[in-house]
Amino acid sequence: MSKAGNVVIGQSGGPTAVINQSLVGIVETMRGKPGIPGAGVGKILGARHAVSGIVKNDFIELQNLSQERLNRIADTPSSALGSSRDKPDAEYCARIFEAFKKNDVRYFFYIGGNDSSDTCRLVNEAASDHKYELHAFHVPKTIDNDLMHNDHTPGYGSAARFVACAFMGDNLDNAALPGVKINVIMGRHAGFLTAAAMLGRRNEADGPHLIYVPEAPFDSVKFCTDVERVYSKYGRCLIAVSEGIHDKEGQPMAAKLAIQQGHHVERDAHGNVQLSGSGALGDFLGQEIKNYMGKRTRVRADTFGYLQRCFAGCVSPTDASEARMAARKAAELSLASDTDGSIAIQRVSDSPYQVEFKRIELSDVAAKTRTLDPRYIVDGCNIDESFRQYLSPIAGELPPIETLG
Amino acid sequence: MSKAGNVVIGQSGGPTAVINQSLVGIVETMRGKPGIPGAGVGKILGARHAVSGIVKNDFIELQNLSQERLNRIADTPSSALGSSRDKPDAEYCARIFEAFKKNDVRYFFYIGGNDSSDTCRLVNEAASDHKYELHAFHVPKTIDNDLMHNDHTPGYGSAARFVACAFMGDNLDNAALPGVKINVIMGRHAGFLTAAAMLGRRNEADGPHLIYVPEAPFDSVKFCTDVERVYSKYGRCLIAVSEGIHDKEGQPMAAKLAIQQGHHVERDAHGNVQLSGSGALGDFLGQEIKNYMGKRTRVRADTFGYLQRCFAGCVSPTDASEARMAARKAAELSLASDTDGSIAIQRVSDSPYQVEFKRIELSDVAAKTRTLDPRYIVDGCNIDESFRQYLSPIAGELPPIETLG
Repeated sequence: MSKAGNVVIGQSGGPTAVINQSLVGIVETMRGKPGIPGAGVGKILGARHAVSGIVKNDFIELQNLSQERLNRIADTPSSALGSSRDKPDAEYCARIFEAFKKNDVRYFFYIGGNDSSDTCRLVNEAASDHKYELHAFHVPKTIDNDLMHNDHTPGYGSAARFVACAFMGDNLDNAALPGVKINVIMGRHAGFLTAAAMLGRRNEADGPHLIYVPEAPFDSVKFCTDVERVYSKYGRCLIAVSEGIHDKEGQPMAAKLAIQQGHHVERDAHGNVQLSGSGALGDFLGQEIKNYMGKRTRVRADTFGYLQRCFAGCVSPTDASEARMAARKAAELSLASDTDGSIAIQRVSDSPYQVEFKRIELSDVAAKTRTLDPRYIVDGCNIDESFRQYLSPIAGELPPIETLG
Repeated sequence: MSKAGNVVIGQSGGPTAVINQSLVGIVETMRGKPGIPGAGVGKILGARHAVSGIVKNDFIELQNLSQERLNRIADTPSSALGSSRDKPDAEYCARIFEAFKKNDVRYFFYIGGNDSSDTCRLVNEAASDHKYELHAFHVPKTIDNDLMHNDHTPGYGSAARFVACAFMGDNLDNAALPGVKINVIMGRHAGFLTAAAMLGRRNEADGPHLIYVPEAPFDSVKFCTDVERVYSKYGRCLIAVSEGIHDKEGQPMAAKLAIQQGHHVERDAHGNVQLSGSGALGDFLGQEIKNYMGKRTRVRADTFGYLQRCFAGCVSPTDASEARMAARKAAELSLASDTDGSIAIQRVSDSPYQVEFKRIELSDVAAKTRTLDPRYIVDGCNIDESFRQYLSPIAGELPPIETLG
């Protein structure tokens, strides 16, 4: 084989504040490289809207962008290439492989969550079947922080920082004008992002006073008594609730609610019920509290929604740097002899905070979900202080707070 | 009169990211000053939870705090003294005056919106009736930016910055995963904060594509056709909607909706219907779009809620500095011969941006509302680009954005 091999990069699923760091990490590592023998690096093609751009032959060439422009793109939130919620099946992946063959693509990088890793795996299987040498790498990305074998994932730190900053301010707001305040946070199966609310506290009287994650079954009656207990102690109650909370039968509260209200329940290509982009769960929980504690109780509910993942200017420096380094690692491995894999961030030490970027098998990540360690969950309604040691270095230093005590 | 006069400071209404700058601006200007002849400055008493702390004799002494601690408090969002939604009538103000007499209070500073200025006026009237020399000053504060005779108000710039950063990110998010996205923003009567969404655009194709403010009557049918027109042009539509939008009869959509859904309509001491702290308006508008454009259209709604006013780390430097200077000006005037007044920020020039802090009458501000100049409102569904010149210096420099174009 004498032709140079081209590179395809895609960004999949929900955007994050640092997903372009990973895009740029790949471009800067790959371009101009001799590559593996017989397949040196040619064009670097960004696939518009992820896999859908690959099958539509909708690419943008990235190899000639200046380093300055790349750095500015890296610092910009959301997926610069566009994204997609398509979940390619074997047939779709065969079409991806056909597009790769046609475009002399020998390197494929897919930045995304566990489904993206599965896409890499399926495309590489198609290539193997045709004895076509393809280097397919998955670069981790998800604010949900739910990839197996990872201490944490790029995107999570910045989203956690957003949640922490929101709670720091909202705790002070709630202290100034006391009442019951419910904040609903993203996360379908994993409570990592909701748990980040705990960074908003500096002492026991600070909120969030209650934190509900999907890992613990949610019971409306216990919820109301929890809130009343806190309220009678502090005269106020600030609550973090995951959008993914579900009853003990495993049915998401948000889906239950939509059905109760006679709404059409929207599902994505993965069969997941829509949770985000609606304030219904927060409003429902607020109403439960009012019914229980009386209409005169000041109850407010906010749903953080899409702000959590792409808010401009709210980036954890550690998260930004790790998103870039994880992608560079994938690019370096692809240029060595490895033909596939996913990059996992693994913690080496807490103090000083240190991580390593390790190659793991695509199948180790694909279609699996990591959840919050039960040792962090207190009585089904809070997150233990020990979570702070895990999260602080990932979310970065937070703005200082000083009160009159 | 030989006794030193004490100072009372209160923080009223909804907290902001810079309201403590004003608190600190008063403390640092007043303490240790000889004051007006015969009434030098004594203790500086912060009233806990605004007027309610005054009548309950619940004060915290501020004159001995170190400048370093004061600076840290100034940089912390929300009202350090606590706040209140009480709207004192003449009888309540008479009780405030009694508390002042008892505590030898000669200087009163009330940081808040137009109602707070009215409280200053009523308390000062009670003092005059008793021939008691009181210096009562209103220091402006409101994210709504709706005080008369002000170019803008402290608190608005930082909240506008939050809205702008949210839209910058959400525009890129919506471009990556196209659909209809509705964001509901605070503001009962004035559309200034909603209009700030326009800073999220860098070119014509960028969102927000539609902006609805309370100054223009809202019509659901026009709304749906507006959205469809944008959607068919760009394949997506990002929308900013004020929580205060109302129909042509002047009834708020949020109140109409609550009544339709059989909910208890909560009103504050001012008779205002609760608008914030619920996702109902966004969800309702989303449903309208789905009904009109079809269930398969991807429609999401977020309500920014309380995050807008106290998010930690999202502060406009200009806003922070002006909040401090407006308060210092009030303190300086009180130490001179003036017995009452409100401070207005007035713009001297756009380029270079320059403002002055001017004493105006309390009655010029009290119980009046400034709204958005109609020349900024385009076809009832957008904000003109000329608003950028007004807003940019107030919101401060925004994070840079670079796209692949």
